[in-house]
Amino acid sequence: MCQPGRVTNTPVCVLGLGLIGGSLMRAAAAAGREVFGYNRSLEAVTAARADGFDADEDLDAVLRRAADRDALIVLAVPVPALAQLLGHIRDTAPDCPLTDVTSVKSAVSEQVRSFGLLERFVGGHPMAGTAHSGWSAGAADLFVGAPWVVSVDDHVDPAVWALVMRLALDCGAVVVPARSDEHDAAAATISHLPHLLAEALATTAGEVPLAFALAAGSFRDGTRVAGTAPDLVRAMCEANADRLVPALDRTLELLDQARTALVQGDQLTEFVEQGHAARTRYDSFGRPDIVATVIGAQGWREELAAEGRAGGVIRSALPVPDSPG
Amino acid sequence: MCQPGRVTNTPVCVLGLGLIGGSLMRAAAAAGREVFGYNRSLEAVTAARADGFDADEDLDAVLRRAADRDALIVLAVPVPALAQLLGHIRDTAPDCPLTDVTSVKSAVSEQVRSFGLLERFVGGHPMAGTAHSGWSAGAADLFVGAPWVVSVDDHVDPAVWALVMRLALDCGAVVVPARSDEHDAAAATISHLPHLLAEALATTAGEVPLAFALAAGSFRDGTRVAGTAPDLVRAMCEANADRLVPALDRTLELLDQARTALVQGDQLTEFVEQGHAARTRYDSFGRPDIVATVIGAQGWREELAAEGRAGGVIRSALPVPDSPG
Repeated sequence: MCQPGRVTNTPVCVLGLGLIGGSLMRAAAAAGREVFGYNRSLEAVTAARADGFDADEDLDAVLRRAADRDALIVLAVPVPALAQLLGHIRDTAPDCPLTDVTSVKSAVSEQVRSFGLLERFVGGHPMAGTAHSGWSAGAADLFVGAPWVVSVDDHVDPAVWALVMRLALDCGAVVVPARSDEHDAAAATISHLPHLLAEALATTAGEVPLAFALAAGSFRDGTRVAGTAPDLVRAMCEANADRLVPALDRTLELLDQARTALVQGDQLTEFVEQGHAARTRYDSFGRPDIVATVIGAQGWREELAAEGRAGGVIRSALPVPDSPG
Repeated sequence: MCQPGRVTNTPVCVLGLGLIGGSLMRAAAAAGREVFGYNRSLEAVTAARADGFDADEDLDAVLRRAADRDALIVLAVPVPALAQLLGHIRDTAPDCPLTDVTSVKSAVSEQVRSFGLLERFVGGHPMAGTAHSGWSAGAADLFVGAPWVVSVDDHVDPAVWALVMRLALDCGAVVVPARSDEHDAAAATISHLPHLLAEALATTAGEVPLAFALAAGSFRDGTRVAGTAPDLVRAMCEANADRLVPALDRTLELLDQARTALVQGDQLTEFVEQGHAARTRYDSFGRPDIVATVIGAQGWREELAAEGRAGGVIRSALPVPDSPG
């Protein structure tokens, strides 16, 4: 078992070498970490090896090595592929610390729990990406400056939490501590809902003659994410449907208020001023550093969740009780 | 009365020296045009004069000069201020060619008609702007490369149309010919609807803890126009309510389909693929040059409307029947 005092020496085992997993492997290696990985397709394994990385397509061999080395295992596969990986981890490396890099946190936690692996699991979500995918699209600097959510759910173990925090920092990210349920509700409103609105706006305009001929900044910005690959959009939105529907309902309620005002010839004052005020608050939303919380001290999870909610980020490793600080 | 053959010599009289009117005055002067203008507040007049421009706060004096010189009068005031100007024009300069630079075309046409001035009127809408306003915010290059819609409604006079086209080209814009009703329906979907969606999205996210802490590209782009001054957003949307409501209804219908799928655990396939396909069509939407239409020839208005609808733009002056070509 790893101890907080030696977190930086913990090897990293990446399962899935696509855009995120492949970038994580590069970034961890660049930070001097021991890192090895698995990918199901030989193609990505061959490409990773050609780039000088330690990759293998034999999952059980990789997991035996992770168990021997007490490595931090990173789940970096799409949600539908998780169950199969978790079965192998339960059988071969059940005591390894475990994290993931998936955009929906509650659903992943539930799956991990169903395999009996929750005790050693701390969810993660690096908020970085490009329009491309696969090993070749990855880059060691993909996470530099990006928020990397690390879950502070009630069950999380301080030592594993410190390992995941350190990995995110080693990759150049800033750590945002958050509860999984709050993460998913927030992601529904700031990521999944904008995708729905962009798709609807693009379709609506596409049906109106002359619309594309006149389209400029407000249409271009409002539909940019409709350019995302449909499978990715569907996967995000469908996996977070429970959180997305309430966010969508609030937006539909607001738009319906605006519609009523327009139909009745009333002013849109309240509707517009609310939106403007919210966007103005966002523009001035601060990102204070979280520096004082001791991981594992009494109430540390609640304290970090509150700091993350207020915009706080961890830019350098927080102290753990049995480390020098 | 101006003749098509001497369009470039027609003086320009700008009524209203805010961002758009003030930029138009600068751009026309930079193109070598004789240009003079009026503003109600002495402040803008003084500032324009200090910058070397020919500005006055005496409306009737300016309009008498416009009548003497047979100038092209440009209405560059907000919609609520139009009626008062049009009354003075009817009394003092009813025979001058007339255009405007307002974002809603049908409503302005109706007002112009109610003052008996429709015969000499050709609506215009330069699709350019900044977040700032007033004379000091203007710039001679504001319109460079921007689409400038020029109305091809059934009533428009070829000679006046040619004058407005030439002014837009002199300001560095590309001319998009369009019917007023089609312009307003298109503007509803590509400009006014995105504003409504941005306001609703900003408000929705502003109510969710952690949302601003995690917000990144898709939220930032999707709410950018919620940063626009509330009065401007209200003025646009309220003035075009008749066109905006049907566009909003179509978007609400699409979002409701998505909601149903999410609630039932169905796939979002059709909803997402429609939006993606529309955005992809927009990305590859061509802007062919309109070069062959002769202004005033039989069916010229319908021909230009069809070309504009297909994305066509006028980059250099089209021929008029009694000009060399």
